[in-house]
Amino acid sequence: MLTIKSRSHEYTVEEFASLREALASVAGGERALFLVDRRLAELHGAELHPLLPAERTVQVEATEQHKSFEALTPLFLELLQRGLKRDGVIVVLGGGVLQDIGCFIASVLFRGVRWELLPTTLLAQADSCIGSKSSINIGPYKNQIGTFYPPHRVVVPGGVLATLPWDEIRSGLGEVIKLQLLAGEVGFRELMHDLQDVRSQPPVLSKWVARSMAVKQPYIEADEFDRGIRNLLNYGHTFGHAYESATHFGIPHGIAVILGVLTATHLSARLGLVPTGHYRELKTLLTPWYEPYGTQLQTAPRDAIFRAIQQDKKNTGQTVNCILTRGFGRMEKLPVALAADIVPAVNHFIENEVAVG
Amino acid sequence: MLTIKSRSHEYTVEEFASLREALASVAGGERALFLVDRRLAELHGAELHPLLPAERTVQVEATEQHKSFEALTPLFLELLQRGLKRDGVIVVLGGGVLQDIGCFIASVLFRGVRWELLPTTLLAQADSCIGSKSSINIGPYKNQIGTFYPPHRVVVPGGVLATLPWDEIRSGLGEVIKLQLLAGEVGFRELMHDLQDVRSQPPVLSKWVARSMAVKQPYIEADEFDRGIRNLLNYGHTFGHAYESATHFGIPHGIAVILGVLTATHLSARLGLVPTGHYRELKTLLTPWYEPYGTQLQTAPRDAIFRAIQQDKKNTGQTVNCILTRGFGRMEKLPVALAADIVPAVNHFIENEVAVG
Repeated sequence: MLTIKSRSHEYTVEEFASLREALASVAGGERALFLVDRRLAELHGAELHPLLPAERTVQVEATEQHKSFEALTPLFLELLQRGLKRDGVIVVLGGGVLQDIGCFIASVLFRGVRWELLPTTLLAQADSCIGSKSSINIGPYKNQIGTFYPPHRVVVPGGVLATLPWDEIRSGLGEVIKLQLLAGEVGFRELMHDLQDVRSQPPVLSKWVARSMAVKQPYIEADEFDRGIRNLLNYGHTFGHAYESATHFGIPHGIAVILGVLTATHLSARLGLVPTGHYRELKTLLTPWYEPYGTQLQTAPRDAIFRAIQQDKKNTGQTVNCILTRGFGRMEKLPVALAADIVPAVNHFIENEVAVG
Repeated sequence: MLTIKSRSHEYTVEEFASLREALASVAGGERALFLVDRRLAELHGAELHPLLPAERTVQVEATEQHKSFEALTPLFLELLQRGLKRDGVIVVLGGGVLQDIGCFIASVLFRGVRWELLPTTLLAQADSCIGSKSSINIGPYKNQIGTFYPPHRVVVPGGVLATLPWDEIRSGLGEVIKLQLLAGEVGFRELMHDLQDVRSQPPVLSKWVARSMAVKQPYIEADEFDRGIRNLLNYGHTFGHAYESATHFGIPHGIAVILGVLTATHLSARLGLVPTGHYRELKTLLTPWYEPYGTQLQTAPRDAIFRAIQQDKKNTGQTVNCILTRGFGRMEKLPVALAADIVPAVNHFIENEVAVG
């Protein structure tokens, strides 16, 4: 069990073997209402049905389009109509989108109500469930609205990972890999070794869920509001986000992060921060973990990519603040000239590095 | 200058003679955007026009109906389209409703952006501008959504009080009177004395703005999130809110608070907590400050009043948590039986105490 400090409250992270055991542990009794990812409710219907009281369960479409005030309004109303009170508990079951939705609702309903999170994807378990911030979209602006409001308890149903589709596991690995690159060479190489057999040995994922949180915890505790050191967790994200949005999310988040990490490392090598050999080694090791999406990146409109990089929320002018690397565990935030350095590096990366054959 | 502690940040309250001087002191320069109560912009157009850059000013309808996600969405979009960035400042000019709107927007945009508040009503200056929480309505549910996010600076344009319509000043006095009842007998009697000449001497109001904040500050610093001692600031509010909603806000908030304070004191006397003489004296002293709204209260549907009291957010069952009084400065939160004690006390108060003639 981990205990994580945050300004609003300390919270614990506990692992349970199954959804059933995780759900049995949540607080609130009759005062608990459940927000459940509709897809999860369908996939695990037989297991979840007897565990979730129908009159206190609200199914939620977990898509980016549903992270808006328009889509949240009926959810707020359903929770209130079903009798949620300020001494109640919102229990959220799902992945990252559901966490955004649940966190935002819990943070503003009654000016903050208790919530517990059961993350059910690798990405949510290994990364997003701690240091929780919510992100809501408005009009054309993505993730510009949100709150910092961690769950009051994170309850990890470990066994659920073995039931996930392989594509979803692969996508979740992006942040797992990024976190071990931040942690240093030893952890990263151990992860690469374990991943060779991950398909036949899914339980190894639970080990890397725990290891991921262990890397992330000191960053979020030192900088809950993302004003300093926590920025380093965005390694790969300026580029990854641009690749996601330019492909209209055709490239899954975790895959985009891997491609973004490689782009940032390539850029770091071009700027002389890290030997080219370091980039080449990462490229070789990580190629299996982004393929076959390299092809999709090549067909994405390049101007949309550069527009997204320029509009990235972490930057303000003609230079873009990038998380670059000087080697394993040695990331650094540095301003980089968009036209002179970023554009040619990204063009080269897309045209020559992710090419197939 | 006051300095107020809050969990998210310390902030100062400074008084300036005029809107012009107050506005000259706000932060942000070109990075500031202004949310301005439309009525204020009309009333003080000549003074405000040269001070507020048109391209960075958004006028806002300050009504309860506009405290909703639907009405806030275009405001968020306007601020983003006009170029507000995460290092920007939202400057809010207006009364309580505008403060709710501005506070909510500032608390969730970019997960929290700097905001400065220029309160322009007596109610906002004397009471709501410190200890700031925002309240947003959703569907039929009033004030159930919100955040705790004080301004980064409160800039009080003192001179503006002299320009307010008398009805608005009267309404603002409700909270001023309630705060002095909480403070104790000496302050309350001094206030009653000063109020005799307030119509011809509006500058005396600035003294009571400062005195009100001085009473409120220790409550909000000790209990920012309204879980304990701060509840006492709700003296009169369970009943006052019910009177407001049952008359569809025909009784202004401050007047409803005075009527609510008298109801709570009447109830306290019936329950033997305070001598009847104390209630009778308050009734005599406060009658001029709620008249002629007593008549309106008598015509309000009684069932709507009791429904509102029962649904008051501070209670959960067949008893209602009321702030009662044992005398000047001796308020206490106590559970009171709805059917046996509250209903007859409210009926008696409305039928026999606020009767005209």
